[in-house]
Amino acid sequence: MLRVAVLGAGRIGKIHAANAAASPRARLVAVADPFGSAAADLAGRLGCEAMLDPVAAIGRDDVDAVVIGTPTDTHVPLMLEAAGRGKAVLCEKPIDLDIARADAAVAEVERLKGRVMLAFNRRFDPSTRAMRRAIDAGEIGEIRQVVITSRDPGPPPRGYLEHSGGIFRDMTIHDFDMARWLLGEEPVEVMATGSRLVDEPLMRAVDDFDTVMVQMRTASGRQCHINCCRAAVYGYDQRFEVFGSAGMLLNDNLRPTTIRRWRQDATDMREPLLDFFLERYAEAYRDEFEAFAEAVEAGAPMPVTPQDGRQALRLADCALDSALTGRAVAV
Amino acid sequence: MLRVAVLGAGRIGKIHAANAAASPRARLVAVADPFGSAAADLAGRLGCEAMLDPVAAIGRDDVDAVVIGTPTDTHVPLMLEAAGRGKAVLCEKPIDLDIARADAAVAEVERLKGRVMLAFNRRFDPSTRAMRRAIDAGEIGEIRQVVITSRDPGPPPRGYLEHSGGIFRDMTIHDFDMARWLLGEEPVEVMATGSRLVDEPLMRAVDDFDTVMVQMRTASGRQCHINCCRAAVYGYDQRFEVFGSAGMLLNDNLRPTTIRRWRQDATDMREPLLDFFLERYAEAYRDEFEAFAEAVEAGAPMPVTPQDGRQALRLADCALDSALTGRAVAV
Amino acid sequence: MLRVAVLGAGRIGKIHAANAAASPRARLVAVADPFGSAAADLAGRLGCEAMLDPVAAIGRDDVDAVVIGTPTDTHVPLMLEAAGRGKAVLCEKPIDLDIARADAAVAEVERLKGRVMLAFNRRFDPSTRAMRRAIDAGEIGEIRQVVITSRDPGPPPRGYLEHSGGIFRDMTIHDFDMARWLLGEEPVEVMATGSRLVDEPLMRAVDDFDTVMVQMRTASGRQCHINCCRAAVYGYDQRFEVFGSAGMLLNDNLRPTTIRRWRQDATDMREPLLDFFLERYAEAYRDEFEAFAEAVEAGAPMPVTPQDGRQALRLADCALDSALTGRAVAV
Amino acid sequence: MLRVAVLGAGRIGKIHAANAAASPRARLVAVADPFGSAAADLAGRLGCEAMLDPVAAIGRDDVDAVVIGTPTDTHVPLMLEAAGRGKAVLCEKPIDLDIARADAAVAEVERLKGRVMLAFNRRFDPSTRAMRRAIDAGEIGEIRQVVITSRDPGPPPRGYLEHSGGIFRDMTIHDFDMARWLLGEEPVEVMATGSRLVDEPLMRAVDDFDTVMVQMRTASGRQCHINCCRAAVYGYDQRFEVFGSAGMLLNDNLRPTTIRRWRQDATDMREPLLDFFLERYAEAYRDEFEAFAEAVEAGAPMPVTPQDGRQALRLADCALDSALTGRAVAV
Repeated sequence: MLRVAVLGAGRIGKIHAANAAASPRARLVAVADPFGSAAADLAGRLGCEAMLDPVAAIGRDDVDAVVIGTPTDTHVPLMLEAAGRGKAVLCEKPIDLDIARADAAVAEVERLKGRVMLAFNRRFDPSTRAMRRAIDAGEIGEIRQVVITSRDPGPPPRGYLEHSGGIFRDMTIHDFDMARWLLGEEPVEVMATGSRLVDEPLMRAVDDFDTVMVQMRTASGRQCHINCCRAAVYGYDQRFEVFGSAGMLLNDNLRPTTIRRWRQDATDMREPLLDFFLERYAEAYRDEFEAFAEAVEAGAPMPVTPQDGRQALRLADCALDSALTGRAVAV
Repeated sequence: MLRVAVLGAGRIGKIHAANAAASPRARLVAVADPFGSAAADLAGRLGCEAMLDPVAAIGRDDVDAVVIGTPTDTHVPLMLEAAGRGKAVLCEKPIDLDIARADAAVAEVERLKGRVMLAFNRRFDPSTRAMRRAIDAGEIGEIRQVVITSRDPGPPPRGYLEHSGGIFRDMTIHDFDMARWLLGEEPVEVMATGSRLVDEPLMRAVDDFDTVMVQMRTASGRQCHINCCRAAVYGYDQRFEVFGSAGMLLNDNLRPTTIRRWRQDATDMREPLLDFFLERYAEAYRDEFEAFAEAVEAGAPMPVTPQDGRQALRLADCALDSALTGRAVAV
Repeated sequence: MLRVAVLGAGRIGKIHAANAAASPRARLVAVADPFGSAAADLAGRLGCEAMLDPVAAIGRDDVDAVVIGTPTDTHVPLMLEAAGRGKAVLCEKPIDLDIARADAAVAEVERLKGRVMLAFNRRFDPSTRAMRRAIDAGEIGEIRQVVITSRDPGPPPRGYLEHSGGIFRDMTIHDFDMARWLLGEEPVEVMATGSRLVDEPLMRAVDDFDTVMVQMRTASGRQCHINCCRAAVYGYDQRFEVFGSAGMLLNDNLRPTTIRRWRQDATDMREPLLDFFLERYAEAYRDEFEAFAEAVEAGAPMPVTPQDGRQALRLADCALDSALTGRAVAV
Repeated sequence: MLRVAVLGAGRIGKIHAANAAASPRARLVAVADPFGSAAADLAGRLGCEAMLDPVAAIGRDDVDAVVIGTPTDTHVPLMLEAAGRGKAVLCEKPIDLDIARADAAVAEVERLKGRVMLAFNRRFDPSTRAMRRAIDAGEIGEIRQVVITSRDPGPPPRGYLEHSGGIFRDMTIHDFDMARWLLGEEPVEVMATGSRLVDEPLMRAVDDFDTVMVQMRTASGRQCHINCCRAAVYGYDQRFEVFGSAGMLLNDNLRPTTIRRWRQDATDMREPLLDFFLERYAEAYRDEFEAFAEAVEAGAPMPVTPQDGRQALRLADCALDSALTGRAVAV
């Protein structure tokens, strides 16, 4: 039974804490957050201890593993603290917004022989895994093109945007990870373009884009397209297409129910999409935690590594560079 | 080249005349209708002769085949007139509203060795034929249940209803034919129920139902359900399901385009259905005429026979009897 | 916090016990089953007490409510024992296979002012509830026809069939409940037909059907069709269609993932259906327990009553009668 | 009644000739092709005159309009010949493979005040037009992203590829036209990448790509992605997505029938796509000819102009340049 502390009691920390508490493989020991009331509320609901200091939580003898759901700039120090103490780590993305610091962290984790898993939750969605299995089984032959659609229901607040690192590092980073995972090869070239179509004044103020397209190529010539937008009126749009020499796999969105409405003006109408990632990927978050706990228990390799996090960040940096310079950027 | 006269220049006669005129296997010689202006208009548009007297059209030496699209009570006399003169006949359903007269007509056609095809157009719809081929190829194994949905966009006018023979003989008769054709066996028992839910006063006045359900069984135990309604706000609803020991076939509706709309309140919305049978079965009418012309040319058996028309009428009579008496009726 | 004992540690008891244990509204106190090892296993896994005697479990002071998941012939005595002791009851369907005993039980529960909910789980499926809400909101106007498809992946073993009460009372009973609930009116007439198409020798041996169709009518003329089969190669098939004057609602099946495959021989292929009711209705079982616990806590009317169970059984009896006699049976 | 000569009796000429012959607005006078037997066959079947010399066909007094379906390098001279003689022209794409010659032709047509329509048939597909109407009606608000999928069932023969001008000018050119038409603004920047994944030796031999991605941006920031491949095992894949501030429009593929198969290993299977453009766009070719005839008759502006053809070619050139240099290319 893995004894777990969750660091951070915000939106994402709550998800991880609930999953740890419900897991048959784990016991939730503590939740730590400098905002004491957040930790207290969550700990009260889940029946564990509340703490203020994440570092103290890492240091507890009755803690085998930590989940890091704190602000991005604390990811690296907490990860290294935990790795240094021999604790297993499930760390939210991104490792860091700065590639040099991410590289240094990856190197240090390796030196410490740390057991760190990066939380790219989409890899654990049941439909995503079914796609991966179908690819591995050779169902679609050699991969030629991957097309990823990734649109949020609405933009985050300005305060968030100011520290997000920009749309490529904050939002598209998930898609960069999916691209690498579905392509089965590393992209070697990135072309990107960015626009301000949802909220031009806000995007100008925070020096960011809200609508982007990315196109990438691997050494063998496999291609990937990603489109992202910070707002879609019909909900959180997450679609994946993998096209190969022997067929194609499509992965559609989820909706709250399966009913279809037929009316005078339209037929076969389905419900709007699940509103956002916490609902859409609820099962993925659960399975991600299980995969983490299982790997730690078994002493098996981590299913997603800090190197994966570093690589996705590198692609995000290349995309930003390409969008700003209008050049294809070699990775 | 089959030389054809079309009898009747109404809604259905126009369809047959246009198909005959466009067919590579046929030449449209004449259109005959006692309403001279209807015949003249149609003949003018299609470049053939207009006549007032259908019997005279049958008698022409330059006519090899006739399509009967006149009022129901003229079907039998015109069919026998044409069969007696050795002309091939494509006759609209039903043969007659009275089973005894239909039986007599079937017997007389046989005596005359007449070449008569009954116009159950749905058998020629490309999707229907694909279902039949899949069944014949054994794709779904032994048939167990057939489910037929058949709803009109709106009820016909009172004048039509008064002479229609009732919903079972006028509307459901197409479904009885499809049921026989898809089941691959003759129904031996019919249970039906009828309601007045669309327009109760009108239905009471014409002593008819507007909403019915029928359930039938063959000797080996195969089952069929049919539901009909005279009105559906979303258009002309024609669905077929054949369930067997090794799988299932579904045949969905047609729409004018393939676009899907995603909006704030609904996603994946499709267009309303094609409004009614002339649009929905346009291709079926074309292919039906080709099948007729091909069979006549080849001297091959007619793809649909007067006996098929008689049998569908018999099932309609049984259904009406069952709906009125509340008993299962043996066919 | 509702203190709950689950009676019966078989397939269905396990579901209820797990839901009670995970519910924020309840605490699972005990599991009781004369097969001691089954109770012990389940109790061990869920951290509650194991008992051999269901009656003793009912009698515990620390038990406020019981869930009855024992064999059918014990439903009535356990329900009455619990009602007599003032315990709330969630009882699996059917109340009993005999309508007279069911009637007597309903009357006795009323006399005792017992708090009994009948476990028609499908009413709590999220998509089913969404249909009900849409109907109540007037989205489809006046209901005209309900079409229910209900096919199991494969037949149960002979031992089960011998005591099941027959397909109408064992399997179709769920559909009779859904029919009543979706029609919004009581059926007054039942017509049914039964066949032996899946396993004729077995069905003959147990004097049962494996393939049935039912058609019902309410006093105002609303119609309902149900088709059932004990086997479908493509999985557990549960579809609902409600057709009204202003539109139609369809409720499709669930599958494990949302992926679609495109291959040379077929496109847009989806996965087989969830295999059976425990998977298909997992969420419905959870929400059913929550609805029970919520109603007990609030002292509110039970969402499904013993009278609902009695009425579904009555429709099953009428259907059997109709299938055997070939008559429409008045309810 | 427009009197029409069709120049070229190959694959595409046959389509145009059949549509002209069947059009209520036109009469097919002649088919001209230096391969006399092709012209004779086609003319025989459609009941018009066969000619060897396209220029002579243009010169006939009884010809008002010509359809140019000859090899690409004859498009410009025939178009100018016809324009010079005051004949209306429907010219197959592309105008020419060389942008300078295309520009000169456009200028000359303008000087001659020629009535020339370029045959971008996809604009006339019923579903495409329905998308355009929905956009114009404001259904999806301001356009943000357009995603176009365009895959052929299999590559053309080497002989064709050697003179095709390359995948961007031969195949993607249709998508460039659709992009302009759906975006509602001119692209100002093009980024493209090309691979050889279908047949590497062949593509190397003809110095071409078989798998490409293109990404474009308009001045206001609207974005468009195009993916093309010369081979898709599941058929001719033509999908369009237009995403806007108020919703999204999707346009799916066509299949020969609407049946869906349910089997043990997969459910809801649909048929493979219509195999190639002649089948997929049959209705679009018909409506294109009608639109041409209607515009000529009415003296209205041509629905697609030589300038449209020139602009699509320019985008193709930019894409090739980008794919070869790895730079974003300004249009």
